[in-house]
Order: sequence, then structure tokens, then C-alpha cells
Amino acid sequence: MKKINLGLIGFGAVGNNVLKLFERNRDSIEQKIGSSIEFSYVCDKNSARLREIKKKVKKVTTDWHRVVKSQSVDIVIELIGGENPARDIIISALKNNKNIVTANKLVLAKNWEEIFSLARKKQKLVYFEAAVGAGIPVVQALNEGLAANRINRIIGILNGTTNYILTKMTREDIDFETALKHAQKQGFAELNPKLDIMGFDTAHKLSILTSIGWSTWLKLENIYVEGIEKIAVEDVKFAYNEFGYVIKLLGIARQIDNKLEIAVRPCLIPKTHPFASVDNEYNAVLLDGDACGEIIFYGKGAGGFPAASAVVSDIMFLARQISAGTAGKIPYVSYEPAKKLSFLSVEQTEGCYYLRFNMADRPGVLSKISGILGKCKVSIASVYQKEPLFKYRRGVPVLMLTHSTNESALKEAIDEIDKLKITKSRTVFFRIEELK
Amino acid sequence: MKKINLGLIGFGAVGNNVLKLFERNRDSIEQKIGSSIEFSYVCDKNSARLREIKKKVKKVTTDWHRVVKSQSVDIVIELIGGENPARDIIISALKNNKNIVTANKLVLAKNWEEIFSLARKKQKLVYFEAAVGAGIPVVQALNEGLAANRINRIIGILNGTTNYILTKMTREDIDFETALKHAQKQGFAELNPKLDIMGFDTAHKLSILTSIGWSTWLKLENIYVEGIEKIAVEDVKFAYNEFGYVIKLLGIARQIDNKLEIAVRPCLIPKTHPFASVDNEYNAVLLDGDACGEIIFYGKGAGGFPAASAVVSDIMFLARQISAGTAGKIPYVSYEPAKKLSFLSVEQTEGCYYLRFNMADRPGVLSKISGILGKCKVSIASVYQKEPLFKYRRGVPVLMLTHSTNESALKEAIDEIDKLKITKSRTVFFRIEELK
Repeated sequence: MKKINLGLIGFGAVGNNVLKLFERNRDSIEQKIGSSIEFSYVCDKNSARLREIKKKVKKVTTDWHRVVKSQSVDIVIELIGGENPARDIIISALKNNKNIVTANKLVLAKNWEEIFSLARKKQKLVYFEAAVGAGIPVVQALNEGLAANRINRIIGILNGTTNYILTKMTREDIDFETALKHAQKQGFAELNPKLDIMGFDTAHKLSILTSIGWSTWLKLENIYVEGIEKIAVEDVKFAYNEFGYVIKLLGIARQIDNKLEIAVRPCLIPKTHPFASVDNEYNAVLLDGDACGEIIFYGKGAGGFPAASAVVSDIMFLARQISAGTAGKIPYVSYEPAKKLSFLSVEQTEGCYYLRFNMADRPGVLSKISGILGKCKVSIASVYQKEPLFKYRRGVPVLMLTHSTNESALKEAIDEIDKLKITKSRTVFFRIEELK
Repeated sequence: MKKINLGLIGFGAVGNNVLKLFERNRDSIEQKIGSSIEFSYVCDKNSARLREIKKKVKKVTTDWHRVVKSQSVDIVIELIGGENPARDIIISALKNNKNIVTANKLVLAKNWEEIFSLARKKQKLVYFEAAVGAGIPVVQALNEGLAANRINRIIGILNGTTNYILTKMTREDIDFETALKHAQKQGFAELNPKLDIMGFDTAHKLSILTSIGWSTWLKLENIYVEGIEKIAVEDVKFAYNEFGYVIKLLGIARQIDNKLEIAVRPCLIPKTHPFASVDNEYNAVLLDGDACGEIIFYGKGAGGFPAASAVVSDIMFLARQISAGTAGKIPYVSYEPAKKLSFLSVEQTEGCYYLRFNMADRPGVLSKISGILGKCKVSIASVYQKEPLFKYRRGVPVLMLTHSTNESALKEAIDEIDKLKITKSRTVFFRIEELK
């Protein structure tokens, strides 16, 4: 039996569970791949972490250069996260003719072209199933199982932290700050949660999925990104109780004629849609192809073991190809550098919207608002106004849903309304995604 | 650019859409695989079908032997369905060193060992994504994306015909016969719908999924199979209105200690579970692995285009490997012939149940029933009895849900109750699957 040697860099929660999963399922794993697996190196900058596992692996080190340069390592597993030195590790490992497994969405989203061109040139593979949706095998599905399709839409709940916070706000009627503290206490949010709550982590994952779906690098700068940090609990409640919607942070890519709409933003989705019951750290991805129609994947999008499931499955698939001498002969990711995509700016996109105006409590308010909306060609689908459910220092809430309208027209109307003297605070608006 | 030659056998709805999908997406397909695709042969026993496409393909024939023996064919695509000659086609094609794509669940479930041993021996690949869940890439997920996991459970809504019928019965309050006629009119049921409604088609698909999940051939004879043909619309209504459950035909495989429970049967599932909103021709599969946790896949499980999505994606993946000279070096399906599984008979399994007793309308009935249930150690969770909603010639319905109980104890109790003079017709019972 051939032996495959692993060099694991980054021994945090995921790395730990990768080792545990190998210990637990070693028999069936080696049976399936037809070779044995050895951890030649485990590397972490924190030497205390390494002390505990010294006996379980061949060598430990705090210097990643030794791992990527080691003659004996077949696969480098990069699990440190962040951009640097993760990028340097991946690039050096490829240059040293290693195959790669990574769980790092940020480094892929920011260095897609460099990494996959080099992989192609060196005939090496870079697998990254854990980078999106942890254990949900959506990357492979898009790369291979659905390869025949022209992709029309990819819509996902892709970030566990924000989804946990929004679930708390919806189910427990608490505000953003309190929900964030809960999430931090439960280990579902980092102490510095900016990347998550401001939507960037979702954008990294959306960049990866769309880069596969459209066979070209969808750069972060092309994605409109909005986070959840400004969502008020009253809007969560109004949306749910008055209109039957749940607020979720969605990553959305949609082909409209020859252009791509691509955005990360909190949206209202119908509470009867399967996405509405995707709670806490769960993720879901909807892929819509011209032949397969709508396919939904659902599962745990965070956590050491779900991510380890993807990392180890990637290692297994790589190990089989290395044993057979076939690894890297076929690139994993289809990439057409010449392909040029055009984008719709967020103002050019269309949809229905939820609006909350915050008005002085006096006659004529509704006629004023609806007059401006009408002038801007924003058509009202429903209106809701009653005594405020919440104590309002900022005026009386007037809620509206619109028919489909252009976002720039909507913003124009809102700008004008926000300048009125009877408007007490800035108008709040959210896109409605029917997910149909 | 290398050319890959296809020999397609069986030009029905799926075959037709395979050709259409190639016509529509040829550019992106060939770009992704780095080679060009040609239909060297299209074969169908019905020569009228071939006349229309003569100009689009190189050769047409009514004799499949010519296709599998042709020197020029790289991939044989078997889309005729049924056991024979499909088995002969696949075996001869492998013997003639062809790689295979098939959508045929029956032939795989019945000939797993023969087909995959021969494929391994000949170093050829047999891909079959379309055999389960049409366009949903669940076969690949189980084979590769989740390979690191020990699988604990596979539960699926795997048959479009029965799911269409049950959806009609639930939503439109019509009986089985009427719903079946609807399904036939809509093209969702064959004129001879036996394989579907008696649960055998679900069993074929369950056999395939479990054979992958447990790395050994799960033969049909080990699967307990029950269909939907005896389901009364009143039970659908009672379950929904009185207890909050929906009836679905499920394929269930579950590891319990060292044994496997494996069954196809109509079950009550909670109407709040995502499976409850899997309607009509849609399919869903829940995979539960020790590392990934619960993952759900959802999409169209029937129809020419969804199946073509899987067939063409399989062809693409094969074509890339053929071009690179790597096809067949790694077997697709992991198979441990030496692995022995033990099974739980359906009587040995445990669960909660829905019961409908059909009793004479007289005092003492409830005490009699509950006495016998108690004696057999079947514990009652809730009881429902009121004036019949339906015209009953067969007695007054007494409905019960049980706590978890052994199925043989339950059947013993039912046998005794059914012998009572006050029992007007046979007791109806269904397993409740909480899907947790």
C-alpha cells in the first residue's frame, strides 16, 4: 500500500478535527483510497498547540517553510485562514509541486487568478470544498455534478455568524448588539466580528461560487456588499408579523440578459420558503441551472467537524489521484481568463422593496409620501400604518411594500422624502427576494 | 482539440434532452472539458425516433451491438431503462473497453457487483448520477464530497410519481385512484405505474445510495418495501389536520449499533420539516454523516432536462479523464466485497406510530383497545376520537399516536385488536419519522 504524506499548516479548531476524523475513520478512509495516510508535518505558530500532538504525528514545526519545502510531503493542507501568510504558503507549495487542500475563502477570493493559473501551469490540484458551506459539498457540485448547466442564479445563506444573529433577533426579539454578544458567548462570532457582520465573509464565498459558476474570476470589487449591523429589531418584527417575511443575509448572483447582478445584502424572504427555516449556524445554497432547475443544498455551514468532513474528503480524493499518478492532469476549476462579464450596478437592479418611513404624526403624511413615490414611478403594493409597536423617538413608522421597481428610482424617491420636514429619521429599506 | 465520441443508446425523453443540452451549451461544455464532443452513434429500437435526428448525428442504428463494438466510441450512454437488454449493453460495453454513463437505477440495483467488479477489472468508469434524484448531484456527493464520513442515515423522497400522487391527495383532498389518474394525465406516471407506486423504484434508488454509503452491495432482498397504493385519503387528512404530519413515501437506511435498518414505506413526517414541502416531482435526500452532520439535497427528481443535466455532467467528467488518459485508473465506487452487514428486520425496528382503529360505535371500545396495547407494551402518546369526518361503512375511526415501540409488539397488539368483534375493519398504521 502506497503512503500519502500530509503537511498540515494551522492547527486550530478545523486542523484538530481533521486529525480526529482521521483517527476515528482511518480504516474506511484508507480502504476507500487504497493507500495509507501519514501526517508528516503539523505546523502552527503557537508551539503550545503542537506539544499535545507530538506523539501522534511524525514532525511538528512552527515554520511553514519547512512543510512546503519538504521532499516527503505530497499534500499541503492550509488551515490558517486570513490572507497572509496563507497566500504565500499556497503559492510556495504549488511552486514546490505540492497539491493543496485549503479551507480559506478569503485567500481564494482575493487571489483566484494567481492560484489557479499557477496550479494549472504546475499541473497540481487545489481543492477547497471547506471554503464554502463547510461540510456541504456545493463546490464540487458546481464544478462537476452540474457542469453541463448554464447557471442562471446562485443565492446563498453563506455565513453562520450573521445567520445566528439574525435567527436570535427573529425568534427572541432582541436587538443586534445583544444578539451579537450571545453569538460571541456561544463561540459563533469572533471577538472582532467585522468580516462576518459587514458581509465580507459572505462576499468571499459568493466570489468563489460565482467564479466557478461563470468560469471566470468574479472579483470582490464587483460585488455590492452590505452587512447586518444596522438592522433594527423592529424591522425584523414588522417584516415577520405584518408581511410574512424573514430577514436573511443573502449572497446573490443572477444573470439578467448579458449582465450579472451580484450582491451581498440583507433581504426579506417569504417565511414559507425553505431558506426561512435555515437557522443559526446552518447554511443553504440555491443553484439554478438551465437544465437542472433549482437545486438547494442545506447543512451546517460552520464548526470544526463539518469543515473537517470537507477537508478530509478533499484529501481522500487527492490521495487517490496521487496514488494513481493522475493528480493535476485535469484542472479542477474551469477558468476562461478571456471571458469578460458585464455587471449591473446595484442601482440598475430591480426588485420589490420593504420601506419604513419615520414620519411626524400629522395629517397629510401618507399623501406626501405616496405622491413622491408616484412621481419617481415607484408603485406601492401594500401599506401598513398603526400605533407604533415600539417607543419611537424618531417618528411614527409607516411601512410599505413596493411592486418591482428600479433601485435608483427608489433611492431618488427616498432621498426626496428624507429631506421633508415631516420626516423624522432616515427611511429604512430592504430588498424582497421571493427566491422564485 | 481531441474529439470524444459518444454512443447513445435509448432515444426517449432523456436521450432527446441530452442532445438538446449539447446543442444549447456546446461552447461552454467543450471549453470546460478541453475537447470536442461528437455523437458517433444514436441507437433506438424505434427507427421512427431516429429519422428526425439523422442529420444531427454521425450514424443512427437500431442495433445496440454495433454501438458497443464500434472502435470509434469512447463512452456508451445507456438510457433505455429496465433490466434487459440494459444489463447486456453495459456488460458488453465494458468488455469492449468503453466507459459508461447510465441513468438506469434498476439495472444497477440488481447487478451492482457484476457491473462494478467488471469496471474495476477493465479499469473503466461507470457513472450514474441521473439514476438517483435526476439532476441532484447526490451520488457524487456520497461517493466523493462526503467520503470522509461514516454514514449514519440516508433518508429520501426518491420517487416523483408517488410524491406527485401524495401531494395531490394532501393538497386537493382526492383519493389515490383519482390522484393516480391525474399523474398519468400529467405525464408523471407510467401507464403501468406498478414499479413506482409499490415502492420498488424507491427501493432501487435506496439500494444505490446505501451501496455507496456503506461501501458494499445492499441488495434489494434486504430492503423492506411497502408502497402507497393502500393509503386512504382520510389518513392523509387525519394526519395533517389532527396531528400536524404529512405522509411521504420514504426510503430509509439507518445504522443502529452494528445493524442496518433499511426500508421503503409511507411515513408520517412533521409538517414543519423541510421534507414536508417537497412537493410533486421534487425529490429530497437527507444524508447524515458523523462529521458533516445532516445535509439535505433538494431538487427536481424527474423530467428529461434534470436527468440530462446529470447525464451530460457525467459525460463531461468522463471526457476530461479520457482526454487526460486518466479515466478508470481510480474506481468511482468504493466497494468492499468482504464487508458483511447485518440487518434489522422491520419487526425488530422501533419507532412511533400512527394508528387508525375502525370500531363499532359503542361504549367500552377505547378501554378494550388501550388494554390490549398496554398488555403488548405499546404506550399511547395521544388519542383522537370524534364524529367521523368521512362516511364510514367500516366503523368509527379511533386515532392514536404511540410512543416509541417495537414494531413486532405493535403488530401483535394490532392482530389481537383486529380479531375483536367490535373491530369493523383492519387497523391502519404508519411509522412516524421525526427526521431528527
